[in-house]
Amino acid sequence: MKKAILLIIDGLGDLPTPKTPLQAAKKPNLDRLAKNGLTGMMAPVKRFVVPGSDTSHLQILGYDPAIFYRGRGPLEALGLGMELANGDVAFRANFATVQGGKVTDRRAGRIDTKTAAALSRNLSLRIEDVRVEFRNSVEHRGALVLHGHGLSPNVSETDPHGPGPVLECQPLDASWQAAKTARIVNRFSEIAGGMLSAAPENAKRDRPANAVLLRGAGSYVRVPTFTERFGITGACVAGGALYRGIARYVGMDVVIVPGATGDRNTNLRAKAQAAVKALEQYDVVFMHVKACDSAGHDGDFEGKKRMIERIDREAVPILAKSGACIIITGDHSTPCSRKAHSGHEVPILVSCTGERTDQVAKFDELSCAEGGGLGPIRGKDIIYLILNLIEKAEKYGS
Amino acid sequence: MKKAILLIIDGLGDLPTPKTPLQAAKKPNLDRLAKNGLTGMMAPVKRFVVPGSDTSHLQILGYDPAIFYRGRGPLEALGLGMELANGDVAFRANFATVQGGKVTDRRAGRIDTKTAAALSRNLSLRIEDVRVEFRNSVEHRGALVLHGHGLSPNVSETDPHGPGPVLECQPLDASWQAAKTARIVNRFSEIAGGMLSAAPENAKRDRPANAVLLRGAGSYVRVPTFTERFGITGACVAGGALYRGIARYVGMDVVIVPGATGDRNTNLRAKAQAAVKALEQYDVVFMHVKACDSAGHDGDFEGKKRMIERIDREAVPILAKSGACIIITGDHSTPCSRKAHSGHEVPILVSCTGERTDQVAKFDELSCAEGGGLGPIRGKDIIYLILNLIEKAEKYGS
Repeated sequence: MKKAILLIIDGLGDLPTPKTPLQAAKKPNLDRLAKNGLTGMMAPVKRFVVPGSDTSHLQILGYDPAIFYRGRGPLEALGLGMELANGDVAFRANFATVQGGKVTDRRAGRIDTKTAAALSRNLSLRIEDVRVEFRNSVEHRGALVLHGHGLSPNVSETDPHGPGPVLECQPLDASWQAAKTARIVNRFSEIAGGMLSAAPENAKRDRPANAVLLRGAGSYVRVPTFTERFGITGACVAGGALYRGIARYVGMDVVIVPGATGDRNTNLRAKAQAAVKALEQYDVVFMHVKACDSAGHDGDFEGKKRMIERIDREAVPILAKSGACIIITGDHSTPCSRKAHSGHEVPILVSCTGERTDQVAKFDELSCAEGGGLGPIRGKDIIYLILNLIEKAEKYGS
Repeated sequence: MKKAILLIIDGLGDLPTPKTPLQAAKKPNLDRLAKNGLTGMMAPVKRFVVPGSDTSHLQILGYDPAIFYRGRGPLEALGLGMELANGDVAFRANFATVQGGKVTDRRAGRIDTKTAAALSRNLSLRIEDVRVEFRNSVEHRGALVLHGHGLSPNVSETDPHGPGPVLECQPLDASWQAAKTARIVNRFSEIAGGMLSAAPENAKRDRPANAVLLRGAGSYVRVPTFTERFGITGACVAGGALYRGIARYVGMDVVIVPGATGDRNTNLRAKAQAAVKALEQYDVVFMHVKACDSAGHDGDFEGKKRMIERIDREAVPILAKSGACIIITGDHSTPCSRKAHSGHEVPILVSCTGERTDQVAKFDELSCAEGGGLGPIRGKDIIYLILNLIEKAEKYGS
């Protein structure tokens, strides 16, 4: 039975300065897969459109974001293991420092995860008929879910994204649901501010975590699962909450790997081994590596290059030995020269026994642009590419 | 006046083992056309989607199957020369052997066409207010048409596709039309079973053709013709009933060529000569060769290769000498290693005086993937490609 591993290297694509990190990196294993396989350039969402990580991953997994994307909040909350019901509204949350009525640090001095967990303990409460649930993740990050009825995601955020006061949440339409949601969010901000200010964990901190900022509101709706829609089973190996959340959203199982941190210290060998092991049970395993995107956002060319070299050395040989079909690409470009996502295509390779090959022998932005095997390809083609590779596609017609 | 021949080699595309049949075949004439022409890779329906032969041909002829495909039955019936009216429901039919209440041979020992014709003689009858018409084609194959009103294609098939009993036809919705159609089908099965069991032709057969299995129900609706939609006239040269039927469905004329059998003994020279002759009367001639697909389904690499060599030797020179624009491609891949249709792109070439060329000098899956002349192309582009080649395209705008 044929299986597939989809490795998504976040923010993989880049621009030449004069080389791209992929061109500069020593990556004999990735190059070997490219040489023995098919290559091309992928436009994750639409050509030259700048994707978010959320919309891009949804599209690559076969879920058109125009239909299935409902804001980042529910995806983050799912990624933290929170249980959502239809109609629940979720937000991304940040611990922040407020001093003199103004946000002076949006990350509360990058508070450590353990202190954040202690502070979170009393932040789940009931307001009106709504159960409000807060959960922290890594450092200052977390998610807030409003469980209940008559809620709307159509409310403004409370994050000032700069040195202003915590914003009041405003309904963005005239519905009573938006008014109710804004009222509950504002009551939560008030209660959380009071409780956090009084918390002993904050007593000695220069930058007390005395506020919770909310953004990315989204309403959860259960969608048809990956298995229901495509007839195959899938699992996810990822460190970052968003990616785990996207996987849960589409009904993939999440494999928790100790040492998978979502940062540049992540244990790539453990992740790759877990991905290969999961193939025993699942048709497709989606493995995600975050740190190339983070390096791109920091403008850290060397860091991005080093991370590519680590992936090549530590993860790719394990994946390649599995005998599964390997698909390797990124969810978008994050050029170091821009320190932001961009709309440039991302190189993609497919390596699979018995498949066609093409002339390209290197895995980078310029080489793969000559790849006739896949040629120009779109994010929405990927699920059908995989179904065809593992012979699980249904015939259309007879 | 410019004319075009569209040669579709069924199931043409393949996978390397380590060469593909196209790569392994000696085919100097096809290679010459590729060298002097344009090449690319075609996704017949959507990229990586596995097409049926019916949906793919409809798409290539300019008829989006999402709109125009209504099941295989009507196409097969049209291909047998049966006349259909709006609302008639048609099925693909098989003679089969039932012994001890179970289907023991779905092909009735591959009954010969002459005996099948004799058995068919009494299978057209009236049930309630519906005229039921059966026609046999090659060996065990045939089609059944229900002519009348208040019929529905939304009924289950009677073919068990294995060693069970002939299935009862069930309505698949609550409409009276589906109930009526199922009732008539079941009455037909009963009458046909009785008449066939008593037929003298079956008396000495080990595997009597004593049942008719039905599948592929579809409702016929007249669609705008090829000429109405694209302003050009078309003819079809094909051995297989399905391809003749698709041509009739879209309003192309069918040229009957003695010796065009739809199998590997088909008379390719006669078909090519008939295609060229038809250019005197028609703008476009669609010529179909089936046997490469059949070889792919059988996993017969050598047979597929030999058939490609026969096409190259016997048909291509005649087509090339005609002076018409030649388009050669397949309707899908049928890799010998998979023995089934697959979602892999199919090579395509265009050879036409006065047109551009590209660097590719060979007609196969790997060479054409480097073809910048057509590049990645979709089935739905082909009709516009042809209209542009023969200067019959209408300007869009002014």
